[in-house]
Amino acid sequence: MASADSSILPRAPGDGGDVVISVDAMGGDSGPATVIAGIAESAAKNPDIRFIVHGPRAELERLISRRGDLAQRCDIRDAAGVVTMDDKPSQVLRKSEGTSMWSALESVRRGEATAAVSCGNTGALMALSMLRLRKLPGVNRPAIACLWPSHNPQGFNVMLDVGADIRADAQDLLTYALMGASYARNGFGLERPRVGLLNVGTEEHKGRPELKQAHELIPTTAQAANFEYVGFVEGSDLPSARVDVIVTDGFTGNVALKTGEGTAKLVGGLLKETFGKSILSKFAALLAMGSLKRLQKRIDPRRVNGGVFLGLNGTVVKSHGSADATGVSAAIKLAFRLAQSGFQQRLAVRVAQSVAAASQNNGGKENEGAS
Amino acid sequence: MASADSSILPRAPGDGGDVVISVDAMGGDSGPATVIAGIAESAAKNPDIRFIVHGPRAELERLISRRGDLAQRCDIRDAAGVVTMDDKPSQVLRKSEGTSMWSALESVRRGEATAAVSCGNTGALMALSMLRLRKLPGVNRPAIACLWPSHNPQGFNVMLDVGADIRADAQDLLTYALMGASYARNGFGLERPRVGLLNVGTEEHKGRPELKQAHELIPTTAQAANFEYVGFVEGSDLPSARVDVIVTDGFTGNVALKTGEGTAKLVGGLLKETFGKSILSKFAALLAMGSLKRLQKRIDPRRVNGGVFLGLNGTVVKSHGSADATGVSAAIKLAFRLAQSGFQQRLAVRVAQSVAAASQNNGGKENEGAS
Repeated sequence: MASADSSILPRAPGDGGDVVISVDAMGGDSGPATVIAGIAESAAKNPDIRFIVHGPRAELERLISRRGDLAQRCDIRDAAGVVTMDDKPSQVLRKSEGTSMWSALESVRRGEATAAVSCGNTGALMALSMLRLRKLPGVNRPAIACLWPSHNPQGFNVMLDVGADIRADAQDLLTYALMGASYARNGFGLERPRVGLLNVGTEEHKGRPELKQAHELIPTTAQAANFEYVGFVEGSDLPSARVDVIVTDGFTGNVALKTGEGTAKLVGGLLKETFGKSILSKFAALLAMGSLKRLQKRIDPRRVNGGVFLGLNGTVVKSHGSADATGVSAAIKLAFRLAQSGFQQRLAVRVAQSVAAASQNNGGKENEGAS
Repeated sequence: MASADSSILPRAPGDGGDVVISVDAMGGDSGPATVIAGIAESAAKNPDIRFIVHGPRAELERLISRRGDLAQRCDIRDAAGVVTMDDKPSQVLRKSEGTSMWSALESVRRGEATAAVSCGNTGALMALSMLRLRKLPGVNRPAIACLWPSHNPQGFNVMLDVGADIRADAQDLLTYALMGASYARNGFGLERPRVGLLNVGTEEHKGRPELKQAHELIPTTAQAANFEYVGFVEGSDLPSARVDVIVTDGFTGNVALKTGEGTAKLVGGLLKETFGKSILSKFAALLAMGSLKRLQKRIDPRRVNGGVFLGLNGTVVKSHGSADATGVSAAIKLAFRLAQSGFQQRLAVRVAQSVAAASQNNGGKENEGAS
């Protein structure tokens, strides 16, 4: 039933392998013009993406028509309603049909698109995603995974959960470890990702009860699920090269993510101030412009924009509400990569295997292939 | 009984108003030589401090004698035992008498010194501080407050708790608000500090139950306790100019603190790399050296070194275990400032008033003076 619908999409001539991304054009802080600009940026860089764009048809047609040939790669789905940043998840669940967010998820549910991207309200997007896409069998709490600039060769670490749910018990943390490892394996090409559990110290006696339980539980599946468990890590390890995936509850992860962003922004602002202070330092900044721009690119949160919802029957990428065109384009790129790698299927297999293994009381399966 | 003992301290000629700081010379990562170097740095900058230094007498005498006249400003207390970084708080409570940490706290308890500074094991220091100095009446959970570089005129915000206790209920969070406001008032000279409660969003319906309760509770004492409650803040607000004091539980606060430190270090490292890359950028760095050094100083964690234990009968400053001489000196400076301002007494009065007001069911007392 699901993938049969994909034939309704108009195809570009001579093209059989395009990846289709479903984009919610509404709900971002700066409106649909920014989202369309982001789509245009992606389209220009990557000829292998096609888009289904959701929002008020007339407005979207007007915005897309200004962007050269973009219309040929976009299929518009008319959706008059918008989920706003102020809508509570509970309200959204009651009145969301007909919104662009609902419509964007519907395209993934029906198999027309491989992944959805939205700049809208995170809580609402997660609530609707759970309602429409449903949780993967074996997953109790889905999670949002983000990328964090790091000293690792791949340039980034994965942290989850950064805000899907403010609670997580030991079993949830184990599932996050599995899903995060799978994401790092497919996203970064790491054969055996290293997973750490975020705590207030690396000693075994420290931390909350659920952390101590998870610290016992996670190593029991690490070998079968093909990741290495490095134990407790601290906030200072988020950019560390001794770990690839950091597991935590959504409350702590959200605070850490926003703290890191805030700190990087503070340092960036002070840096700008520093180089604007004297003629000499202005001149120095001019000389070092290339290097400074590379640095900025490296730590620019817009370029690592995109929290991935893990643990659902479908890939959903949450872009920052305040994302500009570059940010939206980065989120689309991430959705494209995940769609192309077949991540969703691999993750589902991995979680299913783990559930089976757990029910066999950790039957010692090893290395069933890198999924 | 307490302050009578202070007469045993040798006084410098013609000096009646010196502040005495008790320093635990042991327990830091780089040993007593670094702590003595930090004391020497402080002594050179500030003629109004005297020191009681705790550790093995022979070793300390040797280290201090190398530092010119420093011996005249130091009183050594022989303590052979050391609390190590690996000691669990529970072990420490059983075998801590005779350690330099115990001895350093004892000087504060007996009134010989106004404040204690230690680079040792945080958990052990808090456990021993609670045992020897006891909690202030009205305080259930003491807290550790840190300074955070910010966009505010004072250059820093206060965050607490950053690791005294991994739990905090609504009443604890209210106490943290009171104590943090008092710290900001005395430390920064702010008449009416603005206090925010750390959460995953600024909307009222978000967050854990204890946060929602505290969100109701804190405003009821804000006026009487002479601070402004700005509501929920997020991780990105830690360096923000819209708040002076950020209140959270010790688990979240510790992760946020270490995440911020890690991020600042990452950006600093990348910056260094950036400026070392090409001849041109090396030259630029040379030109901008002055500005870059000012920036580094601004965000250098060594210069904001010192977590203050709040809620005890005495001031204890916890320096980073890895602090170098500059870091130790910064922690001593902080202890000196707090000692000189009479902060400890003001805080005790403030908490007592609040407890009294709460028992009178918020009797509407206002502006009883800035304590």
